[in-house]
Amino acid sequence: MDSSTPQLGIGQVGYAFMGAAHSQAWQTAPRFFDLPMHPELRVLCGRDPAALAEAARRFGWQSTETDWTRLVARDDVDLIDICTPGDTHADIAIAALDAGKHVLCEKPLANTVAEAQAMTAAADRAAGRGVLAMVGFTYRRVPAVALARRLVEQGRIGEIRHVRAQYLQDWLADAAAPMTWRLDKEKAGSGALGDIAAHVVDLTQHITGERILTVTGLLETFVHERPLPAQGSTARLGASNGSAAATGPVTVDDTAMFLARFGDGAVGVFEATRAATGRKNAIRVEVNGSKGSLAFDFEDMNVLQFFDAEEPSDTAGFRRILVTEPDHPYTGHWWPPGHGLGYEHGFTHQVADLVTAIGGGQQPLPSFADGLQVQAVLAAVERSAAAGTWEPTELPAAAPTATDARGTHA
Amino acid sequence: MDSSTPQLGIGQVGYAFMGAAHSQAWQTAPRFFDLPMHPELRVLCGRDPAALAEAARRFGWQSTETDWTRLVARDDVDLIDICTPGDTHADIAIAALDAGKHVLCEKPLANTVAEAQAMTAAADRAAGRGVLAMVGFTYRRVPAVALARRLVEQGRIGEIRHVRAQYLQDWLADAAAPMTWRLDKEKAGSGALGDIAAHVVDLTQHITGERILTVTGLLETFVHERPLPAQGSTARLGASNGSAAATGPVTVDDTAMFLARFGDGAVGVFEATRAATGRKNAIRVEVNGSKGSLAFDFEDMNVLQFFDAEEPSDTAGFRRILVTEPDHPYTGHWWPPGHGLGYEHGFTHQVADLVTAIGGGQQPLPSFADGLQVQAVLAAVERSAAAGTWEPTELPAAAPTATDARGTHA
Amino acid sequence: MDSSTPQLGIGQVGYAFMGAAHSQAWQTAPRFFDLPMHPELRVLCGRDPAALAEAARRFGWQSTETDWTRLVARDDVDLIDICTPGDTHADIAIAALDAGKHVLCEKPLANTVAEAQAMTAAADRAAGRGVLAMVGFTYRRVPAVALARRLVEQGRIGEIRHVRAQYLQDWLADAAAPMTWRLDKEKAGSGALGDIAAHVVDLTQHITGERILTVTGLLETFVHERPLPAQGSTARLGASNGSAAATGPVTVDDTAMFLARFGDGAVGVFEATRAATGRKNAIRVEVNGSKGSLAFDFEDMNVLQFFDAEEPSDTAGFRRILVTEPDHPYTGHWWPPGHGLGYEHGFTHQVADLVTAIGGGQQPLPSFADGLQVQAVLAAVERSAAAGTWEPTELPAAAPTATDARGTHA
Amino acid sequence: MDSSTPQLGIGQVGYAFMGAAHSQAWQTAPRFFDLPMHPELRVLCGRDPAALAEAARRFGWQSTETDWTRLVARDDVDLIDICTPGDTHADIAIAALDAGKHVLCEKPLANTVAEAQAMTAAADRAAGRGVLAMVGFTYRRVPAVALARRLVEQGRIGEIRHVRAQYLQDWLADAAAPMTWRLDKEKAGSGALGDIAAHVVDLTQHITGERILTVTGLLETFVHERPLPAQGSTARLGASNGSAAATGPVTVDDTAMFLARFGDGAVGVFEATRAATGRKNAIRVEVNGSKGSLAFDFEDMNVLQFFDAEEPSDTAGFRRILVTEPDHPYTGHWWPPGHGLGYEHGFTHQVADLVTAIGGGQQPLPSFADGLQVQAVLAAVERSAAAGTWEPTELPAAAPTATDARGTHA
Repeated sequence: MDSSTPQLGIGQVGYAFMGAAHSQAWQTAPRFFDLPMHPELRVLCGRDPAALAEAARRFGWQSTETDWTRLVARDDVDLIDICTPGDTHADIAIAALDAGKHVLCEKPLANTVAEAQAMTAAADRAAGRGVLAMVGFTYRRVPAVALARRLVEQGRIGEIRHVRAQYLQDWLADAAAPMTWRLDKEKAGSGALGDIAAHVVDLTQHITGERILTVTGLLETFVHERPLPAQGSTARLGASNGSAAATGPVTVDDTAMFLARFGDGAVGVFEATRAATGRKNAIRVEVNGSKGSLAFDFEDMNVLQFFDAEEPSDTAGFRRILVTEPDHPYTGHWWPPGHGLGYEHGFTHQVADLVTAIGGGQQPLPSFADGLQVQAVLAAVERSAAAGTWEPTELPAAAPTATDARGTHA
Repeated sequence: MDSSTPQLGIGQVGYAFMGAAHSQAWQTAPRFFDLPMHPELRVLCGRDPAALAEAARRFGWQSTETDWTRLVARDDVDLIDICTPGDTHADIAIAALDAGKHVLCEKPLANTVAEAQAMTAAADRAAGRGVLAMVGFTYRRVPAVALARRLVEQGRIGEIRHVRAQYLQDWLADAAAPMTWRLDKEKAGSGALGDIAAHVVDLTQHITGERILTVTGLLETFVHERPLPAQGSTARLGASNGSAAATGPVTVDDTAMFLARFGDGAVGVFEATRAATGRKNAIRVEVNGSKGSLAFDFEDMNVLQFFDAEEPSDTAGFRRILVTEPDHPYTGHWWPPGHGLGYEHGFTHQVADLVTAIGGGQQPLPSFADGLQVQAVLAAVERSAAAGTWEPTELPAAAPTATDARGTHA
Repeated sequence: MDSSTPQLGIGQVGYAFMGAAHSQAWQTAPRFFDLPMHPELRVLCGRDPAALAEAARRFGWQSTETDWTRLVARDDVDLIDICTPGDTHADIAIAALDAGKHVLCEKPLANTVAEAQAMTAAADRAAGRGVLAMVGFTYRRVPAVALARRLVEQGRIGEIRHVRAQYLQDWLADAAAPMTWRLDKEKAGSGALGDIAAHVVDLTQHITGERILTVTGLLETFVHERPLPAQGSTARLGASNGSAAATGPVTVDDTAMFLARFGDGAVGVFEATRAATGRKNAIRVEVNGSKGSLAFDFEDMNVLQFFDAEEPSDTAGFRRILVTEPDHPYTGHWWPPGHGLGYEHGFTHQVADLVTAIGGGQQPLPSFADGLQVQAVLAAVERSAAAGTWEPTELPAAAPTATDARGTHA
Repeated sequence: MDSSTPQLGIGQVGYAFMGAAHSQAWQTAPRFFDLPMHPELRVLCGRDPAALAEAARRFGWQSTETDWTRLVARDDVDLIDICTPGDTHADIAIAALDAGKHVLCEKPLANTVAEAQAMTAAADRAAGRGVLAMVGFTYRRVPAVALARRLVEQGRIGEIRHVRAQYLQDWLADAAAPMTWRLDKEKAGSGALGDIAAHVVDLTQHITGERILTVTGLLETFVHERPLPAQGSTARLGASNGSAAATGPVTVDDTAMFLARFGDGAVGVFEATRAATGRKNAIRVEVNGSKGSLAFDFEDMNVLQFFDAEEPSDTAGFRRILVTEPDHPYTGHWWPPGHGLGYEHGFTHQVADLVTAIGGGQQPLPSFADGLQVQAVLAAVERSAAAGTWEPTELPAAAPTATDARGTHA
């Protein structure tokens, strides 16, 4: 990257948790990766002008907009990065793609399959004009996960038989943890299912290179009423008025669990929960194949466990590979061996991969179609949980139109 | 235990893997535990006279019998210990109980629910005469597991929400591993389901104190034909004649997986497999409650992980409790802290608990009724796997008679 | 931090490994921490104009200088950050302090005690004028290490008896690893001793709050000749001419080991090596006290192990504290629980602490005096290794003057 | 082993902790190993007739003696197993060997080098008559340790550079732990040094196949007065009379630490302590070689960690080898893979190895000469701790006579 590197004007919508992670990634990626285009932090977009100004100053954005439709219309923006809640993704992404902007959209792609289908259709249309879209399953870009994918591709674990995946958190284990919009089905769509099960669905399909075909699952809510935060109006959460200890109803799942069958004959067990006391962000994936096994836990994110069954039995054992060597994915761009990376590095890798794909005119992965397929798996889990049956993840052939899809949230 | 301690005459059927473990336990228990009766190794019973004589000499049995009906008839035997394959359990146990002998029966209690019901009925009849029966789920008696149970009873993890259980082995991961009778449904009843899933069903119900009410599961076989061992007749396994590389059909499951709902509202994920490459005997149970969590892995059997959510958050973490302290279950009878126990200690504890119960006239646990209930859970998994539905584990009210039950294997 | 926050003009010398880590930290700190002054990346200083320009563009430095004396003279620079090899530290730091610039100096403070004394004297003079100096032992600012210090201060482990510290790397385990200036005593001063033992000396003294008083140690070199890199002149490394496989002599230690006695009666075992095959950056510190123990390993950097001996013995065990909670040191400024940090976060914390200290007119820690004391410990190890005796770490009362000190490297 | 197997009459002195472990091993070894001679538990010897009778009954000894000189004189005893405190070893072992009995002697071989020399001389004399002696460093016979030795012998870790050994216990961490004879120098000889450092000296020399040549160390006592047990006379421990809270002086070390140089150029760090709070029986050995590394911790005794530097760097990592495979040392005699062993299995392996050696007329290892050499290392540590210098471990050429040696304890 020298002074002749073309610029890529970035506009980002949202400046909270994900907004901070993305801003830092846009700043950091060009320092550690040689990119074909230089990301310029042109516009930060949000609704609260004061908070927006503060976030823009803090993270180095050159200007702000309080209306995303104006952001989409700006000539100096080449890529829109969507960091808002899921119910706004479809509108922004479709408008941006139709306006000729590349799009990076946070996961889940949308709150409904219909929205995700409309977004995918928009991405398909845009791709014909060289405008590219990607969904942000950043955990794929943890070096240990990328190494797991590489070892599977190299055939090191043989034919895959078992997938064992868990996403365990505990912030709802305490019945006194307060009500939030995330626990309101109207706003959040679902609970652990859409928020965190989505990640392990993507991760396991990415690592194995196979798709989930059928599922049977259950959804469970352990705590049905939670205290409302003291401040502000509580009406929309349905709480009774006047009570000193008002509570609101939890209308989403605390946990989602399901069995799965993959296209290659492998079987899987999945579990996502916010009530696994003591587990903070334990994204665990284990894959057993005919020739070896792989295991990963995000709570020890710089490590991949690998068992090679082709070793003689007296020296075989799960190897704790510290994924910080120069020949590991991504890590050669950072520090010497043994100097681990952290959570936000995945976002920097995502930006680096995205800008590289755009610069080379390649489809960045995971695509919106990939995001839609994850959504279809989650929808099948939801159907199976309601009916107590196995459900296929394949979508019906005739997808609704984009207009119909967006209509559902109007 | 002094010279006035009454004797307890033991007759054991079977002298292979389980037979060795039980013999060693009968010898060892009175050395490390103060028992109300002294086990005398009176009779070892088996069919091959030469091998039987060698086993009896090796393990210190005073005499032998080659026909279990003669064993049951002997006056000098007070307790029959059944270490044979599952399809013989019902006949031997019922005859022994009816003859007034206490019975220790290896798990699974039987190959079918009907047999298990008949055995339980016999145990009920016998109990009225002070004759006691126990089924051998020895993993309950690993000190770390017993400590887990104690902490749950003390309320240390609060209301239970999640159970996560795996029994992972890998001896069938290699498609070249040979055919055995264990892979023949007629002989073995089922594969991973009855052999190893049974253990985690018992363990999780024991630790939580709750019963599994409904399940939905799948059974899968990855390798459908396996090479026959070179020697001897292969006819009964259905192999073609005359081939240099004869194979036989595998007619049982390599893996069993299921979701479960417990009586107290907890939900569970279960997996048992013989194809988890690199996992040798990984019996893993994790339980998450409202106030804490527990985790155990038999591959690190002297350790219990405990998370106490009542700790301040800055010093909370999973504790690696080395379960070798004098105030831990069983361990005070052995060595100083830090000097771990091994696999066969569970069998010694089982003998100690059984003899203590008999001496005190108490029902030893797990009872045959407990073994039957585990069998009912496995049967529900099998039905659900066939039908793709959730199935209750509760048995129909009218159980078949003992005669009917045994008739199914005549 | 709003628009009225005063600016702090930064000039940094060096742009290699440490230069990259520091640049990233100067950029990142104000985004995640509320600082009393805003760091402005004014000048990057180095000798190679082309590489310097590229580094400045990449990391966002506003201008460059190729002569550090000009950097020190610039009015728009308030703080000089020294990221060069140890033999240049004294000249730059003393000149900067004398010119009224705050100084952040990478460790080790200097290559000799005499230089470190001169620098400390300069820091003392400067402090009288409100000009502040700090040495960069960044590992103190890993959250798990900071938590360890806090628990010791709170008395959670009682009276300290044992310190067990290792810094294990393996990049010199292979005898074919090439010669570098780091293995040349003239340039590097020492090997593992000054480069990595320095870190564990600082860490253990920081965590315990106690100073090492006496030591006995050994230094060892396993590989005495190493292949020279193919390119360029090899004369200064003493290689023979004309050989196809030229080698150069290694004149520093591969490993340093020593026993230590602390001021409070604790005893310690220290080891630093670049030949511990398989250990990449294993900075391990364990401290045992009368009431508890702490253990840390940088290869699992987001974790602190804590044993609380005041727990009842049946539930006591080393707790794996995932140091990512809001009430842990530093972590509340970053991501939710379970989302770990990486190596370079320590540098960001260092900048945040330094700017906060400068803004508040407080002495930042560790001071140059702290760095000098570490140097004195290393010197005592070197003396003891040569003489085979125990050596005190206390320095003679009369320190040489700054001029004398710098003279040793003239 | 069939009925024609010759018998080996065993006489054991001592029936406490070590006595129980040895008795169980004598009973168990012939059940799981094919031995050339069958151990017969002929005589148990001790001083308290009632306790002795109870122990003999419990562990199946056929008769008892209360005077070891009578035991040594018995014709039906072929081997004397010495499980008494160290100050009695020399007298019993020398008498037994001179009487033509094989000897197994618990470690440490003796309390002084002089005694150990006399015992070794007796063993040398006896060997000429086909009478064999072994010292009981049982940890060599933990399968993971035996595998480590095998991998070193196979050259898998190359040239050894680093040895890192710790034996950590915590039963003296609490200043309120009571006084015992083990803390009285007159009785016990030394503290952590002779009791537990001895084990790691033997283990590291065994695994590496190299001898320690020189050492420098320190001994430290953290708690100098401890409460006397309430019951009985306290006079010989020097306590003041009449006090309700009488204490006695601790006259041995709580911890021993030393640096070491091995014969092949490797360097080592050793630490043994009874004050490492939270560590119960953590015998840890790590060995780093030019081609690989090995690590063991007795608190996870069925595991050996192995790093193979000849692996490509992207899949290299420490392997957690579960040492329970049929082709691992000893484990093929026990249970299937994944079914771990415990502390006392080492004693069973010791008996099996000893009887096999006697049956084959081979010198069992470790010999008394090996035990003497360990003693010499400990003595060098003690001298170096007193003088603050490096001390050689080689013994002076002219050893004192057996009579002189025993005289020191008369």
